[in-house]
Order: sequence, then C-alpha cells, then structure tokens
Amino acid sequence: MTQRIAILGASGYTGAELVRLIATHPGMRIVALSADRKAGMAMAEVFPFLRHIDLPGLVRIEEIDFAQVDLCFCALPHATTQAVIRDLPRDLKIVDLSADFRLRDPADYEKWYGQPHAAVELQKEAVYGLTEFYREAIARGRLVAGTGCNAAAGQFALRPLIAARVIDLDDILIDLKAGVSGAGRSLKENLLHAELSGGTHTYSAGGRHRHLGEFDQEFSAIAGRPVRVQFTPHLLPMNRGILATVYVKGDPQAVHRTLATAYAGEPFLKVLPFGQLPSTRDIAGSNFCHLGVIGDRIAGRAVVVSVLDNLTKGSSGQAIQNANLMLGLPETAGLMLAPMFP
Amino acid sequence: MTQRIAILGASGYTGAELVRLIATHPGMRIVALSADRKAGMAMAEVFPFLRHIDLPGLVRIEEIDFAQVDLCFCALPHATTQAVIRDLPRDLKIVDLSADFRLRDPADYEKWYGQPHAAVELQKEAVYGLTEFYREAIARGRLVAGTGCNAAAGQFALRPLIAARVIDLDDILIDLKAGVSGAGRSLKENLLHAELSGGTHTYSAGGRHRHLGEFDQEFSAIAGRPVRVQFTPHLLPMNRGILATVYVKGDPQAVHRTLATAYAGEPFLKVLPFGQLPSTRDIAGSNFCHLGVIGDRIAGRAVVVSVLDNLTKGSSGQAIQNANLMLGLPETAGLMLAPMFP
Amino acid sequence: MTQRIAILGASGYTGAELVRLIATHPGMRIVALSADRKAGMAMAEVFPFLRHIDLPGLVRIEEIDFAQVDLCFCALPHATTQAVIRDLPRDLKIVDLSADFRLRDPADYEKWYGQPHAAVELQKEAVYGLTEFYREAIARGRLVAGTGCNAAAGQFALRPLIAARVIDLDDILIDLKAGVSGAGRSLKENLLHAELSGGTHTYSAGGRHRHLGEFDQEFSAIAGRPVRVQFTPHLLPMNRGILATVYVKGDPQAVHRTLATAYAGEPFLKVLPFGQLPSTRDIAGSNFCHLGVIGDRIAGRAVVVSVLDNLTKGSSGQAIQNANLMLGLPETAGLMLAPMFP
Amino acid sequence: MTQRIAILGASGYTGAELVRLIATHPGMRIVALSADRKAGMAMAEVFPFLRHIDLPGLVRIEEIDFAQVDLCFCALPHATTQAVIRDLPRDLKIVDLSADFRLRDPADYEKWYGQPHAAVELQKEAVYGLTEFYREAIARGRLVAGTGCNAAAGQFALRPLIAARVIDLDDILIDLKAGVSGAGRSLKENLLHAELSGGTHTYSAGGRHRHLGEFDQEFSAIAGRPVRVQFTPHLLPMNRGILATVYVKGDPQAVHRTLATAYAGEPFLKVLPFGQLPSTRDIAGSNFCHLGVIGDRIAGRAVVVSVLDNLTKGSSGQAIQNANLMLGLPETAGLMLAPMFP
Repeated sequence: MTQRIAILGASGYTGAELVRLIATHPGMRIVALSADRKAGMAMAEVFPFLRHIDLPGLVRIEEIDFAQVDLCFCALPHATTQAVIRDLPRDLKIVDLSADFRLRDPADYEKWYGQPHAAVELQKEAVYGLTEFYREAIARGRLVAGTGCNAAAGQFALRPLIAARVIDLDDILIDLKAGVSGAGRSLKENLLHAELSGGTHTYSAGGRHRHLGEFDQEFSAIAGRPVRVQFTPHLLPMNRGILATVYVKGDPQAVHRTLATAYAGEPFLKVLPFGQLPSTRDIAGSNFCHLGVIGDRIAGRAVVVSVLDNLTKGSSGQAIQNANLMLGLPETAGLMLAPMFP
Repeated sequence: MTQRIAILGASGYTGAELVRLIATHPGMRIVALSADRKAGMAMAEVFPFLRHIDLPGLVRIEEIDFAQVDLCFCALPHATTQAVIRDLPRDLKIVDLSADFRLRDPADYEKWYGQPHAAVELQKEAVYGLTEFYREAIARGRLVAGTGCNAAAGQFALRPLIAARVIDLDDILIDLKAGVSGAGRSLKENLLHAELSGGTHTYSAGGRHRHLGEFDQEFSAIAGRPVRVQFTPHLLPMNRGILATVYVKGDPQAVHRTLATAYAGEPFLKVLPFGQLPSTRDIAGSNFCHLGVIGDRIAGRAVVVSVLDNLTKGSSGQAIQNANLMLGLPETAGLMLAPMFP
Repeated sequence: MTQRIAILGASGYTGAELVRLIATHPGMRIVALSADRKAGMAMAEVFPFLRHIDLPGLVRIEEIDFAQVDLCFCALPHATTQAVIRDLPRDLKIVDLSADFRLRDPADYEKWYGQPHAAVELQKEAVYGLTEFYREAIARGRLVAGTGCNAAAGQFALRPLIAARVIDLDDILIDLKAGVSGAGRSLKENLLHAELSGGTHTYSAGGRHRHLGEFDQEFSAIAGRPVRVQFTPHLLPMNRGILATVYVKGDPQAVHRTLATAYAGEPFLKVLPFGQLPSTRDIAGSNFCHLGVIGDRIAGRAVVVSVLDNLTKGSSGQAIQNANLMLGLPETAGLMLAPMFP
Repeated sequence: MTQRIAILGASGYTGAELVRLIATHPGMRIVALSADRKAGMAMAEVFPFLRHIDLPGLVRIEEIDFAQVDLCFCALPHATTQAVIRDLPRDLKIVDLSADFRLRDPADYEKWYGQPHAAVELQKEAVYGLTEFYREAIARGRLVAGTGCNAAAGQFALRPLIAARVIDLDDILIDLKAGVSGAGRSLKENLLHAELSGGTHTYSAGGRHRHLGEFDQEFSAIAGRPVRVQFTPHLLPMNRGILATVYVKGDPQAVHRTLATAYAGEPFLKVLPFGQLPSTRDIAGSNFCHLGVIGDRIAGRAVVVSVLDNLTKGSSGQAIQNANLMLGLPETAGLMLAPMFP
C-alpha cells in the first residue's frame, strides 16, 4: 500500500529535494504540498525542474486534510516549525527537517537558538534522526527530528571513535567545508554567484555554529561525560556536499578499524580502504556517506574525512530513510539513486 | 526477466552514466564491463562515485562471453568503434553511443570524419537513434546508433517545424551552449578548470562541427530537399547540459503550436507555455528535454530554446531508452529519475 | 596635477570597480564616496578587497563639497540617477554609468524604461559614451552617459559594418552570453550561486532587453534609416565577461577587413586574424575588447564574436576612459592593466 | 633606468603571471621569454590574454643573450630548474620560482623530492624568498628561491607566533584550501572542469605534501629546535587563492596582537581586527595577504586564517617583490594592483 505523504514548506531546497526523491520512491505518494507565501502556485512554477511530475498544487497548511496523510515532512524554517508542529494532529507521524527538535534539553535549545522553545513537551518526545544510531527509536517514533547536515557529517566520523575510546576526547577538531545549498534559498550577498564563486571563507567560526549543540549533546551522551569539539565551517563554491576533515589523536589503524567495523553492514555508509580519502563529487545527489582515514606523519594522529550531500544524506534523504522506518518500509526504499558524476 | 547488459568502454563519462542509470533500472543487470587500458581494475577505482554498486570488474573486450549478454552498449571512442562492432556476434543487440553509425551515407561519413568507414555494410543496417522519431525501427533494430548530443538538442527543436513547413528552411540558425562533459574525459588545456571556469568561447564554429552531418542528413530527409542550417557551438563553464537557441523565420504561435502538438504525448519532451524559455538547470541528470518558444519583436521571427543533459537525454539516457524498446521493456523504464536541483 | 574624483553610489559593483581602477591611476585621486544606505561605513567594510587602499569614508551625497571635485562618476541605480544629477552643480563634469542618459529621445526613454524622464533638458546635453565613436564630443562634454555593457559589446561588432554597408541591415542577430555581475549586487533567486552555477538560461528574450533602445538609436543613426536587430541575451555561470555572437549576412572577408581597418589604431579594440574567435577569459578584468570574424559554411554569412568585461570596458573602465578625455589626461591612463588569467 | 628582464619557462601559469604584472611595472621591461617546447611561437598564441602587450617571441634558453639581461626569472618545472640555473652566467641575478632551491640542506631536498640535488653549491648560495622575513639577504642575494605558495600562506600565519612563543609548538595544525592554478597547466583528470568543479577533496594528505619541508626548515630555525606541524591540503573549485586555517593553542588575543604588531608596517600583509576572518575573494589577483584571528569557544585555542593568491603573493608577485629588492627598486613597484572583485 502506497503511503500518503504531505510536505510542509515545499518551496525551499529541502522540500524540493524530498519531492525529487519521492518521485521515484516505490512506496510513497505525495498528496499535499504547502508553502504559505506561494500558496496557489503549482510546484512547477516554483521549481521548474519538477515539471514532469504530477503533483498537487501548493496550499496553505490549514487547507490540508491530515486525516488523509500517513506521514508529514516538515521542511519549514527554524523557529516557526515548533509552533506549526504543536498544532498538527497528535497522532500524525512527522519527520521534521528543521533544527527545532534536535536538542533534547530546552536550556540547550535556548542557548544555541536564542529564544525559549515553544513546544517543550514535544521536544521530549522527539527522536534524534541520525538513522544509523537511532533506528529502533525512530521506527517506534511519532516525531523524528532530522539532524543538522554538518552535524551528520561530523557524527559519522566520530561517534564510533568516541564510543570505542580510541581517540583523545579532549582534542577533537572538525574543519568543515560546506556547499552553499546548506544555506537554503535565502537572499544574501555572500550567497550570490558573483560573490561566492571562485573563492572561500569561514562562517560561524570560533565555536558559534549551532550544530555544535548537536555535537555536544550527542558526543557527551556517548562518552558519558562532557565532550566539546572544535568546529570551523567554511563555505565553498559548490552547490551540494560537505567534506568534514576531522583531526583526532589516536592510532590511525585503530581509528580506521573502528569505523570499518561499525559501518560494515550499513547500506549508506562506506568506509574506504585505509589511506584513501573521499571526494564530495562522489556522493553528490545521493544518500551515501563515504569515509576515509589516514595517519599523519606525526605518530598518534589520524585524519578522518567524511563526505555527504547536505541536501540528501544530510537532510531530505535522511528524512526519507527515517520515514521508511516509521512506515514499515524497507529502509533503503527510494534511496539507492547513484550520485551524479560528472 | 532481467536483461543482461554489457558496456564496452565503461571508463568514459557516457559509460559511467550508463552504469549510474542502470543501477536503479528494474529490468537490466550489468554482466560485463570493458575498458581496454583499465582492464583489471574495479569500476570503483575508476569512478569512486559508483563504489556502492556491486559490479563486474573491468576486462578487455575479448574476455567477454557475449553468449551471456542480451544487449551491448558501445561507449567507445569515435572511429575505433566501427572495427570493434564489426567483430561482435552478428545477432547481438547493440546500442552504439559513438558517432560511427549515425550517418547513413559512407561519403557523408568520410566528409565529416575524414576517413573511409571500416564497416560500410553495418552502416546501412544501423538505425538512427533519435527515439521519438524512429521508435518502430529502433524496436525492430539490431544496431542502433545514438545521436550526437548537440544534434539531439537541435533536432528536438526543429524536426516538427521542418516537417510542418511552418518555418523558412533556408534561414535556420542554431546558437548552441554546451557543457564540458560533452568533450569527454580527454585531457586538453581548454578543458582544465583553471581555463574553462568563469568564461566562455566558441568551438568548431563556421560550419565545421561534425554534428552538422546529422542535421544535414535528417533535415534534408524530412524536407525532401537539401536543408543546410547554420550552427555555432559555445563551450560553457558547466558540466552537464546543452541549451540550443534556435532562430527561425515563421509565425511564433504556429511554431509553438506545432511543437506542442508534436510532443503532446511524449514522456520526456516537455513544451513550456508560449513565451516561457527553459534553463539547463531544470533537466540536469535527467532524460528530459524542455522546449520553449518566444516571438521576437520583429514580426515573423521565432526563437525556440531546447535544453537537455548531454550525458543523459543526449547520450546514455537516450541509449537506455532505445535499449528498452529493443528489449521489449517499457520505454521509460529506469529513466524517470528527476533532475538534480540545485 | 591629480584630478579630484567623487564616486556616487560606491557600494555597488561598478562603484567598486571604479575604485579598483583608480587605485593605480596616475592622474586621479578619490576625494569623496557616497552610498546613501551605507553612509557612515568605511569602504573596506562594504568591499574588503579594497582594504589596502586609503579611501574617504562613505557619506550621503548632500555631504559632498562638489567645489572640491573635478569630476564625478555616478554609479547609481537606473531612474534615481536623473533626479540626482539634475540637482548637482551645473558646471560639474559628470560621467554617468546608469541607463538614464543613454537615449536621446525622451519618447524612446519612456518606451524602454516605462516612465517619463525627469531631466529632459539634461538628456539633450548628454553625450553617448562609446568612447571610440564619440571621442571629440566626449572630450568637450560635461555630462557623458556610459553605454549599456551588452550594448557596447554589440556595437563594437557592428558599427563599422553598418557604416560601410557590408552587411544586410535587415537581418542582424545578436546572441549574447553575459556574466552575472552585469546584474549588479541585487538579491534575486536566479542570481544565487546555488541556482546559477552549472547552468544557463535566457533573459529578457524576445526583443524586450532595454539595451535594444541603444542599438536602435545608434544603428539607425549610422545607417540613416531605421535598423532593428534581433537580440537574445543569456545568463552564464561566470562573474565577468560578455561574449556577443553576432550573425550577419555579408562577405566574411569584407566584414573582417572592415573591422580590422576601423580599429587599426585603437588601443583597446583588438581584431584577431580572420578565422580566429576570442574567449571572455582573455579580457577579464581589463579594458580590452577582442573581436573575431569567421565565415559560415553557407556563403555570404559571417559570424562576428566580440568579448569584453562588462564591469570594465562595458562600464567602469569605459567611464574612466571617457573621464580621461574630459580631463585632458591620456586616454589610456590607468587602463592598461592586463586581464587576469587563469 | 628600466631593468631588463628575462623569463625562463614563460608558457606556464607563473610565467604568464609574471608577464601580467610586469606589463604595468614602471621599472621593468621584458627582453627575453623562453619556452622550450613552444619556442618559435608568440606569447599571444600561448596566452591570448596577453595579446595587447608588445613582447619578444618565445625562444629556447640557449638563444638568450644574458649579457643584455639584468635579472632572470626562472619559472621552470621542479627538478629541471637546478640544471638550467647551474649553467647560467654566475653573475646573473636570478629569482627562481621552482622548488629547487627552497631547502638549504641537500638531505632535506632529497627526502622531500626523491632525488639528489644537482647543484648543491648553488643550494647553499640561495636565499629563501619569503620577502618580509629575508629582506636584507634578498637585497644582497644573487639567487633567490621563491617559496611554495602553501608554504607562504602558512608561514605568514605562524612565523611571528613561533618566534614570540605565544603558541604551543607541538600542536600546530594547518588545514589548507587551495585553488587549482597551483597545480599548474598540467593535464590530469582531477584538474578537468568536469571533475573539479562543484566539489572538493584532499590531496597529499597525511604529511606527504612537499611544502612540509619548508615548514620544517623555517619553523625549526625560528624556534631553535625541531618543529613539526600537521598539514592537510584540500583542492577547491576555484582558480586562484589559498585559505589556510591554522589551529594553534595559545591565547587568541596574544596571537592577534603578535601578528598585528609584526605586520604593522608591511605594505602587503593586512591583519584584520580581532574576530574577523578573511576571504580568498578579497585578494584574488593581488599581492596582498589578509590575516584574521578568532578565539575558539574552548579557552586557549585560537584560529588564524590567512589568505593569499597562490599565483601572485604565493609565487609571481612575491618573485617581483624580491626582484625589486635585488634591483634597488621600491619594494612595492608594480605590485599595488587591487584585487579583482567580483
């Protein structure tokens, strides 16, 4: 039986990516699309690349009959999401792609997002959506909170290493290179082609990037004690993809072995042979994450590189992977699309 | 029953694109991959973006047991292809992606490619692979010759107009903008990122581009008299995509109506409403071709713009579409992947 | 004696380009910079690439003491410029980079810009700033109106051909490829890196682009009768540069000879040997325009390709070239910077 | 008196960049250009962007009359340079842009470059060309060895910090992002536009990059004891520019103060206010290096970001800066060109 899907906030990049992926998903069918400011338009007017797909028109959220919906993806802006979700039917399965339900502790939310949470009770209910580490809770969950895209890239590199204690927990450094679609369709000068192409710069450096809240929460939980990583993101002239260069202190072979063992059976996480490092070009448009490990010339230091597509494995692909679990579908359904190269 | 597929020349871009598309094709399975200079390697070594797919290793052509192959894609370089195909089993279904069998007349081949054809008898047998216009012959065919990618973009814009005589046949001009993957994986200075990015220039201008051979052959056949178009290609700093701006003399509304009518039932050819023109970004990675028509301020002049992905609809996607017909599979099988945006 | 320069509208791309060029100009010194919304900021805050230059702070126009200014560049938005210039001192030398004074006929202005002109008397006084063709009037002029960047690219290719009557005046077609900085620093979705990079599309097609007003005015004046060209601009994923592919009917050799003769002594206009066509990469960041001519395979048809940098020769470089004439400086002063490659 | 300049190896990117810069240099004139494989060609054929400059034709080295040359730039490939320079007149002033004379110790050279040095006696004579730190020796020198471009970016960030001992010398990490022109005009698949654009990956990771030899030599000399840094370069889809993200342990304010003080009088090194970090877009095409410092949220950790143009400040601009000193010209002569933006 095909599952009936609604997407709230379909006029942004993650909304469009959900439509792109569901277009060839064997078990899902889109029955409702919302976009408040563009209500009344056809999806093909907002995203002509979806012109060939027969889709419902964009409506306002309140026009959707959620009784006819099996699962709802929320691809709404941060902060407004919590109020919207609070008002949705309490038995509706929801996969949220915003940052609103990623942090379990209301104080953490307020610290990183600068305002009190408007749906504290739902915050407790939400399951953190890093599929490979929360499978059972996600399958049972009603509200699943998609992870930050950068947070996903860093965690795939680090979670097994922290759990296995093969690295120094007090000296972890993530130097991250991110494509521009992670910033969404927002109109800012530094996202213009004329200003971004052909160059690079940092953003939210110095420990200010909000995905640090997720790192802190997750890594500390794994370690059973506070873990604080250093994290410097850079914006690159590329549309899709994240490359996280993760510097750790520990035996490189042990680091590689730990990751290779942890991800041996994972359909989407691929650990390269020791000494090989991946490229973002090799995962663009797909739900795959490639990881590589190399030792530095300085003994006891390892470099882990993880790459994923921020819009797919880092956001909409992850969301569908979680939805598959919540709906009892095969976890990989609709997600085995190969990357696009060149 | 899953069809068994061989790909000759799998180490180039069109070979890799075939693998990418077949990876999620419900009716095809790759049983052999050849690449003479890279024989012995795994496909994932040559194209790490295919790492997640279980594929046969690269071998030399003579190592393939063609008795176990239902259909063979030839993605070999121009000129060497004809000798290879001549030596393949005479009952093997073949879709050729090279230029070797596109021109029916050996004299035309020699004129445009600068050497006599080495398999003249096969040249006669070959069916020209522009699916939407040769469906029946392709379905019955044994050897189908894929079209040039630029030639496809131009023909989708022009064939119905020439057939319907709604334009002046003696004043057709194609100004074409092509992405760089059309040049293949060849190592040339002007294809380097440092030299191509951030700029544009013409290539093979002045009536020297070989796809003119296809235009001449096809347009003259439709018109029943010689038709010679003007054609200026430009290389653009983009990896995938062709935008053909086609200038014709005729009534713009009639031009639009003719195209809209001709392609009304086509799954992959989408004609936009009159006055709207398409973008290459809206078809990247897909088998779709979008077409738009606008009238100029000068009465009696119309501009037709067609966009397609040179590697997909212009080459490997087209090849699979043809193979689907030859194998009795649904024509759209494996080809409904949505474009990638952004 | 160093000339004292003011720049109004210094916070846009053409304003910044003026500063970049004047930074190494031997005869000019910037004494005032205005930017209404950014008044009070330092130029280095708005454009950090100018950090090394000692510049006056950004002020509001009314704060400038024009008695201390020898020449004023106006790099303000279209339509608001005319009111500003109307209120400047009547003896101030002005080079305007906006579209407001390019069209001599108020009716033409209203037709192309959709509103009546607010300074009709100044419109008559303004000299059209295509330096190579209006040198004497510019040298004597008080108010010089910089040309459209696309208009410059097209005119360099066509003016001598129309004057010499070596081409058919009723069948001229300009297919133009433009870099994105021509759109300025405006915040629009289609100018975002995520949406523009890696693809191309037309804009203002069908005879709607405003630079057609300049083509009509100038070409008709040269020909002594109305000339209407066809003009289709395309937006390319490049920051700087325009490539105009100009299709004409006439003898290719005569076309080449006419251009080569006309520009023989020009310091900035370079005609390539017959059969060679230029690339935008070869003029980026410079005041040079390269032109090439090739014959089509169809007799009597020639293709002229002209390339220039829209911000330099198409706008701010041209403006300085005109200012040099107006101030009695050598025409090439400060403008011999080589292009940047790669 | 204008100095007479020869450039050996003028057909590569650094050679062309030398010509670009010297084109507007008030004290230098190019009298000879060599390019062995392209001898007999005009420079404008190899680099059409230099078309407007009157230049001597390309010749073979042995055709140059060095008696008529005041200073010779060597922009030849690594390893072949040493043999060429060994055979040049012993009193000729030489600025070498290759890696051949950067390492003083022959054993170090052999370790990093895999072969014995062919001109050991010259190796001792060569002055390391990081202008700001070797000014007097360079001014007196006959043979100056230009630094690696990455090595320059890292050293500008670190030298004063090591000298002042404000950071932990045993935990220095350089995560570097490099544009593709640093790889030269070499024909490799991963430098093709189709494979590089839109993505990123590491190269020479794990302590294998040869510029580590320079870091080791210089930092150890400053510290008076061995210093070994960690260094991971990444290739970015941009043509020019290096961004070095340098992670150090030390007080961020002290780090900033040390750099600001050290570079207070430097014409080309600009330290941003504390907490601001630079972009590669702000130095492209120029001889400037911008540096910024920020503190991490973890106390006692600072991030230093330095950006420079690999072809200019990292190579050819640095070479001219050194040549100015060697020839008694003002150090900044010909080098105050503003960056190009956008």
